[in-house]
Amino acid sequence: MTIIKVFEKPKLNNPLLIEGLPGVGNIGRVAVGYMIEELKAKKFAHLYSEHFFPFVMLHENYQIHLLKNEFYYWKAKRPGQRDLILLVGDCQSLSPNGHYEVIEKILDFVQELGVKEIFTIGGIATGEVEDTPKTLGAVTDKELLAKYKRFNIDFTAGKKVGYIVGAAGLLVGLGKERGMKGVTLLGETSGFPIVTDPKAAEVVLNTITKILGLRIGMGKLEQRVKEMESFIKKVEALQRKALTQMGKDDRAPVKEEEQLRYIG
Amino acid sequence: MTIIKVFEKPKLNNPLLIEGLPGVGNIGRVAVGYMIEELKAKKFAHLYSEHFFPFVMLHENYQIHLLKNEFYYWKAKRPGQRDLILLVGDCQSLSPNGHYEVIEKILDFVQELGVKEIFTIGGIATGEVEDTPKTLGAVTDKELLAKYKRFNIDFTAGKKVGYIVGAAGLLVGLGKERGMKGVTLLGETSGFPIVTDPKAAEVVLNTITKILGLRIGMGKLEQRVKEMESFIKKVEALQRKALTQMGKDDRAPVKEEEQLRYIG
Amino acid sequence: MTIIKVFEKPKLNNPLLIEGLPGVGNIGRVAVGYMIEELKAKKFAHLYSEHFFPFVMLHENYQIHLLKNEFYYWKAKRPGQRDLILLVGDCQSLSPNGHYEVIEKILDFVQELGVKEIFTIGGIATGEVEDTPKTLGAVTDKELLAKYKRFNIDFTAGKKVGYIVGAAGLLVGLGKERGMKGVTLLGETSGFPIVTDPKAAEVVLNTITKILGLRIGMGKLEQRVKEMESFIKKVEALQRKALTQMGKDDRAPVKEEEQLRYIG
Amino acid sequence: MTIIKVFEKPKLNNPLLIEGLPGVGNIGRVAVGYMIEELKAKKFAHLYSEHFFPFVMLHENYQIHLLKNEFYYWKAKRPGQRDLILLVGDCQSLSPNGHYEVIEKILDFVQELGVKEIFTIGGIATGEVEDTPKTLGAVTDKELLAKYKRFNIDFTAGKKVGYIVGAAGLLVGLGKERGMKGVTLLGETSGFPIVTDPKAAEVVLNTITKILGLRIGMGKLEQRVKEMESFIKKVEALQRKALTQMGKDDRAPVKEEEQLRYIG
Repeated sequence: MTIIKVFEKPKLNNPLLIEGLPGVGNIGRVAVGYMIEELKAKKFAHLYSEHFFPFVMLHENYQIHLLKNEFYYWKAKRPGQRDLILLVGDCQSLSPNGHYEVIEKILDFVQELGVKEIFTIGGIATGEVEDTPKTLGAVTDKELLAKYKRFNIDFTAGKKVGYIVGAAGLLVGLGKERGMKGVTLLGETSGFPIVTDPKAAEVVLNTITKILGLRIGMGKLEQRVKEMESFIKKVEALQRKALTQMGKDDRAPVKEEEQLRYIG
Repeated sequence: MTIIKVFEKPKLNNPLLIEGLPGVGNIGRVAVGYMIEELKAKKFAHLYSEHFFPFVMLHENYQIHLLKNEFYYWKAKRPGQRDLILLVGDCQSLSPNGHYEVIEKILDFVQELGVKEIFTIGGIATGEVEDTPKTLGAVTDKELLAKYKRFNIDFTAGKKVGYIVGAAGLLVGLGKERGMKGVTLLGETSGFPIVTDPKAAEVVLNTITKILGLRIGMGKLEQRVKEMESFIKKVEALQRKALTQMGKDDRAPVKEEEQLRYIG
Repeated sequence: MTIIKVFEKPKLNNPLLIEGLPGVGNIGRVAVGYMIEELKAKKFAHLYSEHFFPFVMLHENYQIHLLKNEFYYWKAKRPGQRDLILLVGDCQSLSPNGHYEVIEKILDFVQELGVKEIFTIGGIATGEVEDTPKTLGAVTDKELLAKYKRFNIDFTAGKKVGYIVGAAGLLVGLGKERGMKGVTLLGETSGFPIVTDPKAAEVVLNTITKILGLRIGMGKLEQRVKEMESFIKKVEALQRKALTQMGKDDRAPVKEEEQLRYIG
Repeated sequence: MTIIKVFEKPKLNNPLLIEGLPGVGNIGRVAVGYMIEELKAKKFAHLYSEHFFPFVMLHENYQIHLLKNEFYYWKAKRPGQRDLILLVGDCQSLSPNGHYEVIEKILDFVQELGVKEIFTIGGIATGEVEDTPKTLGAVTDKELLAKYKRFNIDFTAGKKVGYIVGAAGLLVGLGKERGMKGVTLLGETSGFPIVTDPKAAEVVLNTITKILGLRIGMGKLEQRVKEMESFIKKVEALQRKALTQMGKDDRAPVKEEEQLRYIG
């Protein structure tokens, strides 16, 4: 049971999918969330799944909120830009096979909307505090390397991590099986128990906006990160608490922190 | 495999679903169980699922009893009342995705019977012994806040817990996706290892009967709680024992207690 | 994926299903296995499932053997007897929901063959060495109590254990939902780490053969138990080893022993 | 969700399936991988599954690689040879039931291509360093014993291990249910924490090439093993790391090593 509810059927011209679900340093979540706000992108669909945590959250103290992933669209305003579909959300799948199922569902959906190219945004835990974090990259096809190298992306991610868990990796990996081209952008972050890494998110934002020909000021980023962070922190704390209570996680606090960062 | 067996097809007029499955302090189970008995509501269907524990219980020493959820109905007797569907049962789902599957099945079933509004009843573990426990509430839609505030419901549940696990939360969360309106009523309880909290159950019962325009005396509650408690305690003890034997739970007793209370 | 392969379609007259899969003290497995041999019952179908352990065993050092449950039939020879379907096997399901799925599949199959009554045979771990073990019983319907009480069955199983895990319980519990009548016979056994309890198996065998009007000598039981035991022990040891290697079981040896006995 | 993508539909004459997925000592992976390279077999299909790890790997630092199993074919060149389908891959299933599902999918696929006979290649952990490792064997049918004994195969595997976990066992076990004949060849290896055992792989390679009437020089084996090993080691290390981070494996390093070797 993974259901996508569509509120509006946008007509998009060769749209690009940009994914930013929660993960390491919440870099994707923050970067794509900021793009959505600054571009005033419009929500047109959401997804919920039996593979998410079996609980609802309480917003503003009293309002029931089902865990969801959300699809926004934005139409190109000037030459050099592309129509975009932006994917953010509260969480990723709880079980290993759930990742495959949810992502195949997402790919079915965006393929029908004409998506042939995907950018996913995540973080890469380097274990070290980086003064000048870089944007690392990985691609589905060799020719993309040449195309995107000029955007100051370091294509040696494989040396540092070797694998990408969850949506940031599987969306492009499974997308390739459908003939889609894919790029993963990973912000270098320490992976230390700081929930969100705004500096790494800004670096990746700079890269992706340059690629997409977007003009997005970073002036409100710090403030937005604070706002998003308080929500993201809450979801993470609740998941951690629920995991403990459901008996799925009885490890020490430090390890629990790690668990919440395993997704790229 | 989640199966609903229907014994009778009642004709109901715009019925309200009231859920009270086992959970924190067993407040929902006790409150809705008491309503069923006092209203002499009629059983018309039951549900069993592969997501429940794979064992049968022995009633009265010799009678085999499959784990089930049960549906009762009650027809309004006077103006201001509503036809009701009451949902109680032995247990909730064992696996996270099972919660979603069982609840979607329940929603399919009650939607066909005309349900457009849901009340779920659960408990909220405050960690403190409450002399005068309150009824906390959460809703799917803002306008419900205004409608139900006058029933002395404290709509700040989000401050105390932030999330509701299992049926009490997902029934209203997933119901909203079908256009149903939902209210969750949570009795404040300590969450200490007392299986059932009759005081908190009485407080929530007072709230829900006022909302529904029902006249139910609380005189037999204490006695009924004792009767129900002995059965509920047995199910919980068996589940705990089975979990241990199936190797799913090898934690210390205290933690096991917690595990049995994670559901709202 | 649970598949039943049928080698022969026997025409049976109102047949009775007798189940004896591995479980506590292997009482059902031994009792029904002995009945099959002594009655010279004929194998006509087998079942395998994704819910069994993902390994094959090696028989006689070199022959590959998929884990299976097996169906035998036997036709009544004289008045007072009934046609029988006997169900034995190498193992039960590995996962909780697998129990429900495999047993529903079995019920679909035997229902088509005309089964309206089920006997399941299991063990009950009393924690004490019993000099004169009894046959305990549980039934789906009150009237069966009166019918079978005269066979010296102690219908107070509920006092001693309260629940029956796996096939011995679910076959009759889920069978009842299809209108089938069911009786579970449980041999009292210590539950200590002795794989098979031949004394308890003999006691239950005496009960079931009396009920079925069968004349089966117990002379070869001890020898047969020894033969079966060496195979059953091997399966159990392999499952234990596989569980450890698959990282599903990293508990101490004593607890592992327990785990293999949780099924009734 | 287990998907086989076919790039080419080869016309094969009574082809034999040879499986060599990762497992104990990686003997099957190395032996069949070497055969593919030396025979210049052609890739014609690949398989991916929700039962594999939910991550992508990074090849050559920057290229995204979905976990897969791969099918190659090779056509007989001279009398006495047979057309071959060779199956290798990055990994096996993560979950127990996933093994059954992936292998049934593989059997569906090769059955349509005309496969009636299967050879699987694996390792057997003896716990001792073997100076002269043997090829042990197991078969689905007694007559195969006579047919293959002359190839110097020791058909007493059952004495040493008793069971075969994963593809090497289930492919022949489930294949037999479809009327396919099956042989499992197991190289004797210590099972100590050396990822790949080239000596045992060479012994099994000698056996299988003799059976298949192939002329394959072993001259490049050592070099190829080194090349393959670096990749296999990486996959194993990543799986281990991912397991730890996903909270599925919090055991000591030694035990983790064991876990990676449970598959035959």
